[in-house]
Amino acid sequence: MPIRRLVLDVDMAVSEPSLPQLARAIEDVPGVQAVNVTVTEIDVETIGTDVTIEGDDLDPRAVQRAIEHTGAVVHSTDEVVAGTYTLERTPRKR
Amino acid sequence: MPIRRLVLDVDMAVSEPSLPQLARAIEDVPGVQAVNVTVTEIDVETIGTDVTIEGDDLDPRAVQRAIEHTGAVVHSTDEVVAGTYTLERTPRKR
Amino acid sequence: MPIRRLVLDVDMAVSEPSLPQLARAIEDVPGVQAVNVTVTEIDVETIGTDVTIEGDDLDPRAVQRAIEHTGAVVHSTDEVVAGTYTLERTPRKR
Amino acid sequence: MPIRRLVLDVDMAVSEPSLPQLARAIEDVPGVQAVNVTVTEIDVETIGTDVTIEGDDLDPRAVQRAIEHTGAVVHSTDEVVAGTYTLERTPRKR
Amino acid sequence: MPIRRLVLDVDMAVSEPSLPQLARAIEDVPGVQAVNVTVTEIDVETIGTDVTIEGDDLDPRAVQRAIEHTGAVVHSTDEVVAGTYTLERTPRKR
Amino acid sequence: MPIRRLVLDVDMAVSEPSLPQLARAIEDVPGVQAVNVTVTEIDVETIGTDVTIEGDDLDPRAVQRAIEHTGAVVHSTDEVVAGTYTLERTPRKR
Amino acid sequence: MPIRRLVLDVDMAVSEPSLPQLARAIEDVPGVQAVNVTVTEIDVETIGTDVTIEGDDLDPRAVQRAIEHTGAVVHSTDEVVAGTYTLERTPRKR
Repeated sequence: MPIRRLVLDVDMAVSEPSLPQLARAIEDVPGVQAVNVTVTEIDVETIGTDVTIEGDDLDPRAVQRAIEHTGAVVHSTDEVVAGTYTLERTPRKR
Repeated sequence: MPIRRLVLDVDMAVSEPSLPQLARAIEDVPGVQAVNVTVTEIDVETIGTDVTIEGDDLDPRAVQRAIEHTGAVVHSTDEVVAGTYTLERTPRKR
Repeated sequence: MPIRRLVLDVDMAVSEPSLPQLARAIEDVPGVQAVNVTVTEIDVETIGTDVTIEGDDLDPRAVQRAIEHTGAVVHSTDEVVAGTYTLERTPRKR
Repeated sequence: MPIRRLVLDVDMAVSEPSLPQLARAIEDVPGVQAVNVTVTEIDVETIGTDVTIEGDDLDPRAVQRAIEHTGAVVHSTDEVVAGTYTLERTPRKR
Repeated sequence: MPIRRLVLDVDMAVSEPSLPQLARAIEDVPGVQAVNVTVTEIDVETIGTDVTIEGDDLDPRAVQRAIEHTGAVVHSTDEVVAGTYTLERTPRKR
Repeated sequence: MPIRRLVLDVDMAVSEPSLPQLARAIEDVPGVQAVNVTVTEIDVETIGTDVTIEGDDLDPRAVQRAIEHTGAVVHSTDEVVAGTYTLERTPRKR
Repeated sequence: MPIRRLVLDVDMAVSEPSLPQLARAIEDVPGVQAVNVTVTEIDVETIGTDVTIEGDDLDPRAVQRAIEHTGAVVHSTDEVVAGTYTLERTPRKR
């Protein structure tokens, strides 16, 4: 069953890439259908983002290579969804 | 794949442009289908806004030029969505 | 592309106009399809309201003139939506 | 264009009218289609309520007279919606 | 126009009735279509509940008699909805 | 009219039953269509859970016997829904 | 009636498995249709996750074996849903 969603914690320099450049680089990875890049923190020299990626069959390594090729850095993978449909997390209640 | 949504942090002088003028200047950019300008802060001389723009194929540079042509200032790009559909951000849970 | 929604910060005297009078005055402006007047503050002599107005092609100046003709005061425009559909704001995440 | 919704701040004595009596008195006003009476405060002698009224063409004065005829008191009108559809308030973001 | 919903603040002894007994007693009242009994407080000897009742034409007095016949006590009526449809409350914004 | 939903506060030993065993024991009760067992507290020796059970015609006593047969303990019944449809609680606003 | 959802509290070393490896190992268990692995905590050496698994007929032991085979550890089962449909928890109101 394919990987359908990846959520990544990505940092980049304020200078480059621009957010549209990052989004386009991710889109060019085979299997990617849509990408959302949201800024969560702006520091003096770096920008912190949440990157959400969906597709029918995502390749996590190819996505990571494409991001790092732009000069941005993947700090961590925060969510992976796989299967025949996109399953949301059921949060713990305790 | 096209850019479908841009969220921008835009400041302007209290005197001009008016919010309707800003909205209309953005609408005139090719590819723009809808724009929402929301005031988030009113200071003595400046107004801070969240500008959300959607379209089938947005040109981030043309949007920025149109905004700055009105006298307003783009402080930062806060969200970019690209792909075959408009993907919402999945927020980090840690 | 037309203006589809205006959100205004409107104050009025406790004595007049009444909220129904204000709503009807706004409705009479050409292009207005619906109006919501919600009280957010009641002081000794004045009432503060959020006025939401939707239509297919709103004229912000005509709306302002109609409101001020009733004796109420437009303090600020807080949101403008324009385009081929009514776009909600995507709030900033930082 | 007709008035479609009224939200009123209504107080009554603990003794009378009962909530069903108040609801029925409002329903009997021409143009009223539905009414919700919700208790927001119970004091020693008085009950405070939010009264929401919807209809195709509400008459604010007739509604007020009907409420006061039961012995209850209208403190203020808190929301008026008018137009070709029932428009919800867009809250201010600053 | 009929009463469509009643919300009651009902207390009962820990010993009896049981919640299913209370629910069934309310259901047996003519006009009742559905009932939700939710515990909001458990003390040493009493249980506090929110009782929500819906139907096409509720009789508030018959409902109260049925509840008190089980040994439970109606402290107050907290919401009444009447009309051609079930209208939710629009909460006050000030 | 049948009982359609029961919400129970159920405790069990850390050792047994397992959550799947408890869920299956409840499912085997005639009339049960679906069950959700959610852990709300983990102590050294006991696990606290919210158990939600739905069906077309639930028998509260048979459900309780099935739960206690597994070695778990029903502390209280927290919600009962009965009638021709599953009615959610309307919470008190005061 | 089958088990339709499992929510597990799973820890793993920062080094391995990767989140995609964990998701794929769970997917390979017969009966699994979709899996969501969400990181809830990152420490120096370990990563804490909420793992949500849905399927038509889940085998809790086979899922646990598959997870532990990757080197990750199942700390607890936090939710089990079984029956003819996927029932959400109704939270306690007291």
